[in-house]
Amino acid sequence: MTEIPLILHVAPRSGNCHKVELFLSILGVPYRTATHDYTPADLKSQAFRAKNPRGQVPVLEIGDNVIWDSQAILVYLARAHGGEGWLPSDAAAMAEVMQWLALSANEHLFGLAQVRIMRRYRHGNEPLVLTVLERALALAARGLETMERRLARAPWLALDRPTIAEMACFTYPALHREAEIDLAPYPATRAWLGRVRALPGFKTMEGID
Amino acid sequence: MTEIPLILHVAPRSGNCHKVELFLSILGVPYRTATHDYTPADLKSQAFRAKNPRGQVPVLEIGDNVIWDSQAILVYLARAHGGEGWLPSDAAAMAEVMQWLALSANEHLFGLAQVRIMRRYRHGNEPLVLTVLERALALAARGLETMERRLARAPWLALDRPTIAEMACFTYPALHREAEIDLAPYPATRAWLGRVRALPGFKTMEGID
Repeated sequence: MTEIPLILHVAPRSGNCHKVELFLSILGVPYRTATHDYTPADLKSQAFRAKNPRGQVPVLEIGDNVIWDSQAILVYLARAHGGEGWLPSDAAAMAEVMQWLALSANEHLFGLAQVRIMRRYRHGNEPLVLTVLERALALAARGLETMERRLARAPWLALDRPTIAEMACFTYPALHREAEIDLAPYPATRAWLGRVRALPGFKTMEGID
Repeated sequence: MTEIPLILHVAPRSGNCHKVELFLSILGVPYRTATHDYTPADLKSQAFRAKNPRGQVPVLEIGDNVIWDSQAILVYLARAHGGEGWLPSDAAAMAEVMQWLALSANEHLFGLAQVRIMRRYRHGNEPLVLTVLERALALAARGLETMERRLARAPWLALDRPTIAEMACFTYPALHREAEIDLAPYPATRAWLGRVRALPGFKTMEGID
């Protein structure tokens, strides 16, 4: 088996980067790091956004393949280097593991990690009085922009066919009117909403037009 | 193959429940629903928390097996009923799909869904002036309580051995001092932090004691 070198993009003091480095260390998989800073010229630059449209670390490069989310990277490493041990393929066992990845993306990232940032590293652009609504509007825009960037060049989010990426990402953009969020700037996303709606067996809910 | 009946716990107007019902409908998998409301006597009750420690829907019951997160439920259904189509087991392809599940848990849930709730359904207990810090502290507590409940009766989060659930959930609780969050009320979680630290190949980061 040819070893394709792994390059992990990291930034100082990032807990999400630590998760990946911890797992690489436990697996004993060799890798190189590329260290970034949080300036507009680096993680927020167009060049870096070509690797990760969210403008965040960690990002893992495996040859030409780029994976841009810490959870997705953990899944990749578990399946590529961990056999059935760290992420079994059995449906029930995999779901047990995924519950906790969901907890880490939700309560940990928007709870523990957020409190740490605000108390310890409070960035100039994120004052303590930022309201939940202001923060949510910024996140909503980042999510829609990330989808739009992908869907402008591919019909489906993850692969060449619908996957559970479509199931996970359809509902809230489709409920945009209830959030009073305009989808006019996201034409590729609007076209994709139509493709999901056209899937055999599609089911709607109140609030989706 | 014996058909085990699926029971999906839902609540009105929940986008996360819709994701699951949409996928069940597309897969053509029969199921029953159990409908809940958002009162303390229902979703927030001890009885329901025995099914889902977060006190949220959706929850999927498959016989005695209970899955409590919408993403984990999508993963379960894809692997149990969708063959390789909806969630392939190949490492790179699975990671592509997982990127988008992560986006839906992050930008969608704390962005789009949050804006919708605040503009359309604003609950009495969540005023618009709630700050990001207040919200984050509540989420941090919910995350730690959910982990503690599991770890009080099992050594590892998901299965009978360490999995990537450990990799995903270790770092931010371990950084609790930087967040000025006291782990004294979570003895089982503190013991588990020690077990993760004892894994061969463990790697630390600044801020973890």
